[in-house]
Amino acid sequence: MKKFFIFMFLTIIPYVSGAQEMKQSEIDTVFGQGEENPYGEFFSGQTYLKRLSENDNIWNSSLANVTFEPGARTNWHKHSGGQILLVIGGEGRYQERGGKIRVLHKGDVVRIAPDIEHWHGASPNSWFTHISVETNLPNNTSTWLEPVNEQEYK
Amino acid sequence: MKKFFIFMFLTIIPYVSGAQEMKQSEIDTVFGQGEENPYGEFFSGQTYLKRLSENDNIWNSSLANVTFEPGARTNWHKHSGGQILLVIGGEGRYQERGGKIRVLHKGDVVRIAPDIEHWHGASPNSWFTHISVETNLPNNTSTWLEPVNEQEYK
Repeated sequence: MKKFFIFMFLTIIPYVSGAQEMKQSEIDTVFGQGEENPYGEFFSGQTYLKRLSENDNIWNSSLANVTFEPGARTNWHKHSGGQILLVIGGEGRYQERGGKIRVLHKGDVVRIAPDIEHWHGASPNSWFTHISVETNLPNNTSTWLEPVNEQEYK
Repeated sequence: MKKFFIFMFLTIIPYVSGAQEMKQSEIDTVFGQGEENPYGEFFSGQTYLKRLSENDNIWNSSLANVTFEPGARTNWHKHSGGQILLVIGGEGRYQERGGKIRVLHKGDVVRIAPDIEHWHGASPNSWFTHISVETNLPNNTSTWLEPVNEQEYK
């Protein structure tokens, strides 16, 4: 009976703590999958971040490799200095407020102008990895908005 | 005899004009191999450039995928605003003036500070591809110096 309680306790920990199992990307991320869930509440689904260049006053450059599990995506958001996405692999989606969804594949480039509200993420059945380039640093602030709902995503 | 002269003429044209056959990269360049020999006299060996983001005053960002045939490399040079290299694949080399050669592989990141004299290129027996990120635009001017000689390269 004691063993049973220990078993139940160990089984229930991950659910109580909100921990999720780290999954291995099914596509070649080239620069690595990195750490889990870097953006917390501003993303839906499981995402991963591998920093390539931390912003500083020598290079003024923030570069990162972002990997999305199938169905994972950012909230709606905007960057005051803009952003460029370089697609490494998988199939993803990009949409600007009021525009159509653009389907993204390996080798695609997305240039997002300053203050344009948008979201990006994986397609429902594919992993997706892109490099993110924050532009016009040090003058670039991100503003996070509401999640992309199922109707917008589908 | 007439046929012989036509044959000789057609055979000699590529050498006289300096034209070289476009070779297909043996590694996955992810963003494409692009156009041949973009930097002319400032590079040794055959190189290829695929522009990803042309510099302009909206993003102030110059991004390109650069592919080197085995043995191909830049001259010594420097950038007044610095540069970051993101290695896509193959095996390459990077050296700062007075320093040791660093061997580069897929996933490596090289941050080159402003005004540091350096060169980069492929290893002798491998193709090599990296993304080039020019930093601190629009304040970044490149200065091209002498070729990397065989003694420095080996």
